[in-house]
Amino acid sequence: MPIYKAPVDDTLFILNDVLGIERYNNLPGFAEATPDMIEAIAGEAAKLAEEVLFPVNLSGDQEGCKRNDDATVNVPKGFKEAYDAYCQGGWLGLAVPEEFGGQGLPYTLHTAVGEYMSSANMALTMYPGLTQGAIAAILVHGSDAQKAAYLPKMVEGTWTGTMNLTEPHCGTDLGLLRTKAVPDGNGSYKISGQKIFISAGEHTMSENIIHLVLARIEGAPEGTKGISLFIVPKFVLKDDGTPGERNAVSCGAIEHKMGIHGNATCVMNYDGATGYLIGTENKGLNAMFVMMNEARLGVGLQGLSISEIAYQNAANYARERIQGRSLSGVKAPEKKADPLIVHPDIRRALLTIKAWNEGGRAFTLWTALKSDIAHRATDEKERQAADDILGLMTPILKGVLTDKGFDHAVMAQQVYGGHGYIEEWGMSQYVRDARIAMIYEGANGIQALDLVGRKLGMNGGRAVMALFQEIGGFCEENRENEKLSGFTKALKKGLNDLQASTMWFMQNAMAKPDNAGAGSTDYMHLFGLVVVGYMWAKMAKAAEDALAAGAGDREAFYRNKLVTAKFFMERLMPETTLRKARIEAGSDTMMELAAEAF
Amino acid sequence: MPIYKAPVDDTLFILNDVLGIERYNNLPGFAEATPDMIEAIAGEAAKLAEEVLFPVNLSGDQEGCKRNDDATVNVPKGFKEAYDAYCQGGWLGLAVPEEFGGQGLPYTLHTAVGEYMSSANMALTMYPGLTQGAIAAILVHGSDAQKAAYLPKMVEGTWTGTMNLTEPHCGTDLGLLRTKAVPDGNGSYKISGQKIFISAGEHTMSENIIHLVLARIEGAPEGTKGISLFIVPKFVLKDDGTPGERNAVSCGAIEHKMGIHGNATCVMNYDGATGYLIGTENKGLNAMFVMMNEARLGVGLQGLSISEIAYQNAANYARERIQGRSLSGVKAPEKKADPLIVHPDIRRALLTIKAWNEGGRAFTLWTALKSDIAHRATDEKERQAADDILGLMTPILKGVLTDKGFDHAVMAQQVYGGHGYIEEWGMSQYVRDARIAMIYEGANGIQALDLVGRKLGMNGGRAVMALFQEIGGFCEENRENEKLSGFTKALKKGLNDLQASTMWFMQNAMAKPDNAGAGSTDYMHLFGLVVVGYMWAKMAKAAEDALAAGAGDREAFYRNKLVTAKFFMERLMPETTLRKARIEAGSDTMMELAAEAF
Repeated sequence: MPIYKAPVDDTLFILNDVLGIERYNNLPGFAEATPDMIEAIAGEAAKLAEEVLFPVNLSGDQEGCKRNDDATVNVPKGFKEAYDAYCQGGWLGLAVPEEFGGQGLPYTLHTAVGEYMSSANMALTMYPGLTQGAIAAILVHGSDAQKAAYLPKMVEGTWTGTMNLTEPHCGTDLGLLRTKAVPDGNGSYKISGQKIFISAGEHTMSENIIHLVLARIEGAPEGTKGISLFIVPKFVLKDDGTPGERNAVSCGAIEHKMGIHGNATCVMNYDGATGYLIGTENKGLNAMFVMMNEARLGVGLQGLSISEIAYQNAANYARERIQGRSLSGVKAPEKKADPLIVHPDIRRALLTIKAWNEGGRAFTLWTALKSDIAHRATDEKERQAADDILGLMTPILKGVLTDKGFDHAVMAQQVYGGHGYIEEWGMSQYVRDARIAMIYEGANGIQALDLVGRKLGMNGGRAVMALFQEIGGFCEENRENEKLSGFTKALKKGLNDLQASTMWFMQNAMAKPDNAGAGSTDYMHLFGLVVVGYMWAKMAKAAEDALAAGAGDREAFYRNKLVTAKFFMERLMPETTLRKARIEAGSDTMMELAAEAF
Repeated sequence: MPIYKAPVDDTLFILNDVLGIERYNNLPGFAEATPDMIEAIAGEAAKLAEEVLFPVNLSGDQEGCKRNDDATVNVPKGFKEAYDAYCQGGWLGLAVPEEFGGQGLPYTLHTAVGEYMSSANMALTMYPGLTQGAIAAILVHGSDAQKAAYLPKMVEGTWTGTMNLTEPHCGTDLGLLRTKAVPDGNGSYKISGQKIFISAGEHTMSENIIHLVLARIEGAPEGTKGISLFIVPKFVLKDDGTPGERNAVSCGAIEHKMGIHGNATCVMNYDGATGYLIGTENKGLNAMFVMMNEARLGVGLQGLSISEIAYQNAANYARERIQGRSLSGVKAPEKKADPLIVHPDIRRALLTIKAWNEGGRAFTLWTALKSDIAHRATDEKERQAADDILGLMTPILKGVLTDKGFDHAVMAQQVYGGHGYIEEWGMSQYVRDARIAMIYEGANGIQALDLVGRKLGMNGGRAVMALFQEIGGFCEENRENEKLSGFTKALKKGLNDLQASTMWFMQNAMAKPDNAGAGSTDYMHLFGLVVVGYMWAKMAKAAEDALAAGAGDREAFYRNKLVTAKFFMERLMPETTLRKARIEAGSDTMMELAAEAF
């Protein structure tokens, strides 16, 4: 049966040894986050994930959600109790300002523990996850009255939130959306239309559901410039702020999906539902992007989360399952066969996942820290520099970690042989759950386009140049350090490929944008390799420093880090060259075929 | 809703233009396979696949199989009728000798049409597919009496067959198996034990099920040298050869699997069932490998099949779904958005699949032709040379085409965005079905080990050297041909990487076998790239020749072939360098971690 143990040790290594989070205690919320406090919080989160969320994960997948004839939706057994425990622990508002009932702690810490929750139960964690996205949008774009009316209950988890973007004929291309908003003369609007793929759209775990809905105000311009964002509560609030009359929004159907069966993915019908404009008229996409960007980081994290739990199970199985003998001679003579873990090909798979997980964990926390700095630093330059990197990293984090998360779930499943294909072992669920993360919140091809078409050239390439300088500088600084030169050399080689590819776009994609599209996915992965390689070089440095300082009983931890770092550089970094070659192949050949020739 | 159209044109191009199948009409069965006959047979197969098997594919997945309380098993609605049509068409015995009721036609043709059947309905096609494997084992190792008793009914499809290898504690490592066979004094045996993951193990589509079962005769040596193969019919044959008494074998449960829901994957319990030794005592693995090798080619073909149907649907969707505008300017001004197919990143995905499918189709047919030559040629040297290549290609074909088949199903699903994740669109089924092909008939890691550990060094490396010479010779011959030099140059580069990696194994894996295991999967994929690259170079040559001869209304077909060939060489072949780098990284780093450190 599946197992899960939150990797608290590794989280603490990254926060303390690698990122030196203590150095940021001048930022609001960081002073409270002392190393002891962080360790305690991570420990509590681990307990909740392992003991409460995880036990209903496989059963939740098998039971799924069910829509009743009265349009109510049942969640799987045990979900409500687990959700309540999550809310009661205060996890929903960990990083939300205290004035709205949150704890105001770093978003970095929220990200660290968020990994555990999604590992333990991705489908369940999506309910508060969507709420967090909605909270972010209201925080930034809501009026004071809206904040006061909705945030405290949402932060408690008594009310949940949703994002309503997609319609049957449009997902990526929101300019096509048709849902209408008609002013009702009371300062509010009547919303009509159909939204699909609405995660957590309907259920009975919360007392109210606050839908954030994109719609077009009557007479608004066509395309993306005529879209506004509305708050549409399932129950319209009474004057005393409590949920009152049922609004004209209902779940028309729930989707029969490949995975995340425990989350109710709904078709939502808006039949003249009362909605309240949030932010500025026709500027709905801006407001939506606040949710979207936060959600993208959350989805990237899901990729890591599933990769981690799939890995833990595969590693465990490889230690326990005996099958065949080691190529280099019998390793367990007392048994009829050696454990799978003696076989190099099994280790190749496991180490590939491990190296990406630990590197990906550092990548998510490093990015989350940029988010904290961007939102909390007092120095404007510091904020801007952090925001630059955050914007640049968002599509990479989402696209790369979810592509990898899925690949790794598949690799981990493979370790099980035939048992991996049988639902009761749980590996199939990880594969099926991980699959959605490559699609929602902007399919990964869209992330790649966002990176190449928007983020790269933004402010004259300020972000990318700063990052190249930072990574190049790190290589330079540690060039003479014998213990690190193997790592920095491999990283520098990857960085060179990335810089050359960036240059190639500058020279070839301005006049011919198809060259950017043709190389976008390869570029996103190339960038991911270099950034995660950078994380590994930083981790190797931290490990070497700790060993030099005398690591005591932590010595094995740091030595293993160095082995995994070496594996990343030897086996995974060389992919940068392939990505570069593909980018430089350009778009000519792929654009040559007529549509009918496919 | 899903579509499927058998790629008959492409099959004929490969058989006629690329492989020149007419040149083999001195082989038994080939004289009958004239171009007209092949076209007619492929057309009939296409019709059956498109009109009979395909319409029950998605419904079969959704309904699945069901075990009743009396241990009988129901297959999905429409499966029995489709299976009957398959059998009545004579498809089961297409390549089986006429004396047993087959048509004695080339295995190459059987492979060509087999692709269509598995594309249209993989779960259904497995029922006759397993029968074909059992037929092959009885043909080679059965006594004359056994052949006469079982083959005609199996070739008709009136009786089906199964392979029983796996037990709960052993899959890959058959030396551990425990199922027992005790002589019963009548020349037969009593078989007792439990087998798991038995595809088509129980169902009511056939009048009898002929189980081929690996078991250990009482007192036999331990390990793989004490394993024998038995025929265990569901109904023991009466003296008149008709099914009589129910044998003591029954379905204990059916597995709840990730995919191939239409195929009944059974736990089979043998409780003193009557079994008949097939072949020599304790040599059961040899007999099993006859089935296994044929089955491995069939499974590789499944990878191609799913990749093809997933591709067709994605290409169709990309032409029809409008979303966003082309980067290079509006392409469909009359619509609110351009079709997906204008976007380079969509084309990248589609062309990647297309290039592998067409190359993989050539690869399977080229390999199948080797099988025909190995089994039917009169000249022993010719037979041996073909058998060498067949043995070498079997693990590559199985491992690479199933890994790719799954990857491509995922890529095709991605083209659908959110709709790809919803079961009713059918893309999820392809992903879930394709997944098993990487696992069964020897997980792909085992294929890679078979390649590196066994096939490579067999007969002093005779097979691999002959193939390198053939490919190198092709490059040399066409080096001066301006129209082909782009292709041969890229192929030669790939071949160099493959040869260098082969040499690296020779120098580094003899003394340290872990180096072979560590690079085995990369080597298998490296080899697959070069062989499929070779197919593309041959196809490019055939296309250029046809164009030079005046292709008439087929011109577009050949021109598109050349574009796809170019895409393969530009975008996909460069992966050989990455594979080589990984192989040369060796096993040291991955063997360094203690088992507990994973």
